[in-house]
Amino acid sequence: MNMTRQKKQEEPFQHSAPNTPNPTCQDWSQVLPQLLRAGQGETILNLLPSAIHELNNAINTVLGFADLLQSEPSISKTLKEDLKAIERAGLRARELLGALRSLASGVPAQLQLAPVDLKEICEQACSLMAAAFRRNYIQLVTDYSKETPIIISDASRLRFVFLALLQNACDAIALKGEGGKISVKTGRDQFGNAVISIEDDGGGLNPDVHSKLFEPFVTDKLDGKRAGLGLFLVNRFVTELQGRVEITSSETGTKVTLTLPSLEALV
Amino acid sequence: MNMTRQKKQEEPFQHSAPNTPNPTCQDWSQVLPQLLRAGQGETILNLLPSAIHELNNAINTVLGFADLLQSEPSISKTLKEDLKAIERAGLRARELLGALRSLASGVPAQLQLAPVDLKEICEQACSLMAAAFRRNYIQLVTDYSKETPIIISDASRLRFVFLALLQNACDAIALKGEGGKISVKTGRDQFGNAVISIEDDGGGLNPDVHSKLFEPFVTDKLDGKRAGLGLFLVNRFVTELQGRVEITSSETGTKVTLTLPSLEALV
Repeated sequence: MNMTRQKKQEEPFQHSAPNTPNPTCQDWSQVLPQLLRAGQGETILNLLPSAIHELNNAINTVLGFADLLQSEPSISKTLKEDLKAIERAGLRARELLGALRSLASGVPAQLQLAPVDLKEICEQACSLMAAAFRRNYIQLVTDYSKETPIIISDASRLRFVFLALLQNACDAIALKGEGGKISVKTGRDQFGNAVISIEDDGGGLNPDVHSKLFEPFVTDKLDGKRAGLGLFLVNRFVTELQGRVEITSSETGTKVTLTLPSLEALV
Repeated sequence: MNMTRQKKQEEPFQHSAPNTPNPTCQDWSQVLPQLLRAGQGETILNLLPSAIHELNNAINTVLGFADLLQSEPSISKTLKEDLKAIERAGLRARELLGALRSLASGVPAQLQLAPVDLKEICEQACSLMAAAFRRNYIQLVTDYSKETPIIISDASRLRFVFLALLQNACDAIALKGEGGKISVKTGRDQFGNAVISIEDDGGGLNPDVHSKLFEPFVTDKLDGKRAGLGLFLVNRFVTELQGRVEITSSETGTKVTLTLPSLEALV
């Protein structure tokens, strides 16, 4: 293994949320593809609540009639089975739409702290990524330790954090083009904090970006397919939640470890 | 009418695509809420193709069984009507997903020029915004002149352009909180170019942003609900398509006029 590509990036454990974005000045034209990608993202995000609303109406119609028809006395057992298949598909669509809806409303500026079940949020993010994992021949391995504490945190921020990290992991494996494995683990450290790690066996981070991973618009996807705001968002949100992000990366993969404070650490 | 708030912004008709983004340097922390909103948009955009794929699978299951059941000889006429209702809802969901899918794949870096029916793209954008219009008591008035030329342009860019403009118009009316009207018109100017206008009767653009409308991260929504990349994207894409954006705004509303070159103007 070429050790020169291996680099460990550590951020000090921060208990407040100062100006984490890097104050580097850049000419917009240097980040034009990323800005345009971000603009497309904004347009979709603005649109999504109403599109989801419309889709939900359609699904509710499907489910309503499927339910009605099943209660018809004249329906045979075979036909009932088919109606049940319609109902299952409708319920799956509704579940997916529900997960999308909680993202589409966006993250409120103010922290909204409440007890958070990390396993639940991880699983929801993984299920949203399921098709992307399949398409890229990615095996997902999860290990949610029973020791994982319930923490007081902001679910809407954490949803974006996990999704952004799973997308990076998926991208890294997709770029290699040979399929791969993503491991998601949750647990507890010796201080009672929650620890979440997301590890991929992709080709690792481009060494050029090591020193500026948490800056906006940093991406090694040069085709304009990424805005490079993922790790910027992750670092910012985790810092707001008084947590810590650590990244280790080598040619054999990347591991991102989040530490999020337990209730005791917060107060 | 207070004329001091009225301002007309004119861009020279550009036949090439130079570095349109403004080279102003900014500290990232000055645009932090916008960057975080854009980061959420990116995460959603990355996710959407696979989420749409999953939803489509569910809808296809619904439609497949609804079709199968309708062909059952034992099904009564009333039950058939109910199955038709399921089918209609499924088809509507599929149509919406199709419109979303063509956005979710993002805009390729290279222009993809082909004959474009502006009415079709406008209508698709309007139908995606339908629920947002209803929620904000917005009446949509369209006027697609038969004179509107078929132009050679890039449909994937124009989809985002129209959506971003409709979203701005919707936001302006929503901000005023009294409902309103959006007029969408397409036509042809004296040189044979296509002209599209989108006009709202909202409260007009904040005068503070008049001078920098096309810069990234400019928004008068201060609550972090917008990244302020809409007009930046519109101007950039329209310029790439060798077109022109004009904006007039007063206290009684905003009108954005796009001029897109006809085939003759392009070659």
